Amino acid sequence: MNHRDKVRTMGKRAKEAAHEMAKAGDAVKRDFLEGTAKRLESERRRIAEANDRDIESGREKGLPDPKLDRLRLSDKVLNEMMEGLREVALLPDPVGRVTSMWTRPNGLRVGRMRIPLGVVGIIYESRPNVTVDAAALCIKAGNAVILRGGSEAFHSNQCLAAILRESLRAAGLPEAAIQVMETTEREAVLEMLQLEDCIDVMIPRGGEELIRFVAANARMPVLKHYKGVCHIYVDEDADPDMAEALCINAKVQRPAVCNAMETLLVHQRIAPEFLPRMAEAFRRRGVELRGCPETCRIVPECRRAEEEDWSAEYLDLILAVRVVPDMDAAIAHIARYGSNHTEAIVTRNYERAHRFVQEVQSSLVMVNASTRFNDGYQLGLGAEIGISTSRLHAFGPMGVEELTTTKFVAFGNGQVRV
Amino acid sequence: MNHRDKVRTMGKRAKEAAHEMAKAGDAVKRDFLEGTAKRLESERRRIAEANDRDIESGREKGLPDPKLDRLRLSDKVLNEMMEGLREVALLPDPVGRVTSMWTRPNGLRVGRMRIPLGVVGIIYESRPNVTVDAAALCIKAGNAVILRGGSEAFHSNQCLAAILRESLRAAGLPEAAIQVMETTEREAVLEMLQLEDCIDVMIPRGGEELIRFVAANARMPVLKHYKGVCHIYVDEDADPDMAEALCINAKVQRPAVCNAMETLLVHQRIAPEFLPRMAEAFRRRGVELRGCPETCRIVPECRRAEEEDWSAEYLDLILAVRVVPDMDAAIAHIARYGSNHTEAIVTRNYERAHRFVQEVQSSLVMVNASTRFNDGYQLGLGAEIGISTSRLHAFGPMGVEELTTTKFVAFGNGQVRV
Repeated sequence: MNHRDKVRTMGKRAKEAAHEMAKAGDAVKRDFLEGTAKRLESERRRIAEANDRDIESGREKGLPDPKLDRLRLSDKVLNEMMEGLREVALLPDPVGRVTSMWTRPNGLRVGRMRIPLGVVGIIYESRPNVTVDAAALCIKAGNAVILRGGSEAFHSNQCLAAILRESLRAAGLPEAAIQVMETTEREAVLEMLQLEDCIDVMIPRGGEELIRFVAANARMPVLKHYKGVCHIYVDEDADPDMAEALCINAKVQRPAVCNAMETLLVHQRIAPEFLPRMAEAFRRRGVELRGCPETCRIVPECRRAEEEDWSAEYLDLILAVRVVPDMDAAIAHIARYGSNHTEAIVTRNYERAHRFVQEVQSSLVMVNASTRFNDGYQLGLGAEIGISTSRLHAFGPMGVEELTTTKFVAFGNGQVRV
Repeated sequence: MNHRDKVRTMGKRAKEAAHEMAKAGDAVKRDFLEGTAKRLESERRRIAEANDRDIESGREKGLPDPKLDRLRLSDKVLNEMMEGLREVALLPDPVGRVTSMWTRPNGLRVGRMRIPLGVVGIIYESRPNVTVDAAALCIKAGNAVILRGGSEAFHSNQCLAAILRESLRAAGLPEAAIQVMETTEREAVLEMLQLEDCIDVMIPRGGEELIRFVAANARMPVLKHYKGVCHIYVDEDADPDMAEALCINAKVQRPAVCNAMETLLVHQRIAPEFLPRMAEAFRRRGVELRGCPETCRIVPECRRAEEEDWSAEYLDLILAVRVVPDMDAAIAHIARYGSNHTEAIVTRNYERAHRFVQEVQSSLVMVNASTRFNDGYQLGLGAEIGISTSRLHAFGPMGVEELTTTKFVAFGNGQVRV
């Protein structure tokens, strides 16, 4: 079979499996998830051998150390995968839940019932643990899934795929519910993106280039996360100690992630007092500041920001800083340069706190808390499959529930339309 | 300005207007909707003149009568538009509603708040009333909208657009919240479909060709409705009188719409009694039957169905009929040939009623009621902008709420991530 036929066959098998999966009860899905966790434990050696082959050939190809690091299925990563599987097993099953029901004047009882999305396609880059993490969430939500990982992780992914298949079989679920693409050719991906009759949604996970490629070529809907240019606005009525703690946490605790702060906006009235102490706190932690003219006037050693700094996702110990005349200017700045990811206000003012929450249209808008909380675990959704920065279907962290949709159900006793 | 620049300018203006719209309270939106209803009343003459120009040039171009009919803004159609505007005005405003809120172990209070989608693009064909109906729903949900109607309705649409602009101005809303494209060139539509940074969702309304064109070319998400191949399954335990009444209503009451029944599935045990009486009832109403071999054996005058009849959307007084060995065969037939629109079971059996509702994955699955109820008004959502047969974001009738999304909000008192 050529790529085209292989991919089409996978799509058809996934669609058939999705019908079975939609009927699977939670006990069976839990069996699969807990069984997989046990198999990862008992197959540590087999996994390590497959992973070593990838690491070795990565080294031969001259992959840089951070990439080799992401590729490695260390004991720590394996333990986290097992813990994740057990946590997902315990999440409430969203499928079949009737979220609301009402009665029409003619007596027809109408409701909405949660159902799986169907077939989920996931295209991702180096980390092989995504194979298990993503499959677990898709199965819990009653979907079938087609996974296409990076070529560097080929052997690890195939090994994990075999283990997942064994767990499906042991739980009595169709093996085609989780299929990992065996080819890493680009044409196979392009073919996958054409299968709108088999794949209900595509979720790309990786760099901006991958995501733009998927969005431009997919015929089915795409749930995507471009970048996180997150802001904290320190209001004139902020508690300066709280503001300092939140800004340090949001910038420094883990600078390389999408929910780290990239731009700090400070009200002009608090700036003369607040900015020098922040500059000192950031200096001690090795954060480089890039400021607007007013920031540089207050903090003379600060480097001047260029226009592109306002939309930069540094993912590093660098921070853009701007003094704003009022909250409306802060909101306008966020609307212009932000990426709809996460924004926070620090204030003691009741009215502005609520107006900020109303008027800023990002996936998470917060009062007096660190931007670092935009994450499925932290918000209480359980594991997440990504953070959507586009508005349709899911906006923000996507957990198990976001891998489902609702259908209407109606119970009548002979109603006809007049 | 060329098309490209014109369309881009519309997109940018719509995006700015969407920011204003998201803040608009319900009183202002109601003002706009009720004001538009009043203006349609007082401007009947102006509307009739514009509409006459379209009808005349349609006649000159030799448009067939049904198309001319759809084009006409008769008094009846205008009255329905006014009534629709007043109904939408009274619907509850979804924007700002916090649908759930919970507290995390660290005290962070997290919730989901409904917000507008942003900018909605609507591409539709002949009926000019869509210009007002669709704009009303989009505005109620706090969105800006760009409308592109059919070239045959050009003057009617421009006249309605002017009235809508006057109403926006009078209510203090930005005029760019409703923009009707002035060009009807295809390149302008193609350009519109590229504006993923300005338009959040595209909703095509019309024939399958239009919808496929939009789905293939749009870079933003598309909410689409392909076709309605709706089924009624008459179970062995059906009440035959109820089954007859439901089948007649679903097929005959308005055969040219998407929620009319196109295929009847009958359990083999009830078929010998039920099919002859149904054949007679249908014959009296001028419905042509196309049956499977078993149907033709029971009803000898029935024409044999070809393979393509099982997936046909006749939109006419024609019905495909198949005898099935059991409910699972009916469900399998629906999964294979259906279009995920509307399916009903007629039965007195409790267990099968519930299993049918669980296992059939269409946008509306019913027990003992006519398929004709799949419609926003009938299900109690208020006016609808269409019926989605794809699963993401909205599945089934899309009312005001489906023109919104949710963001996460979080209220803290200094929480940092550890």
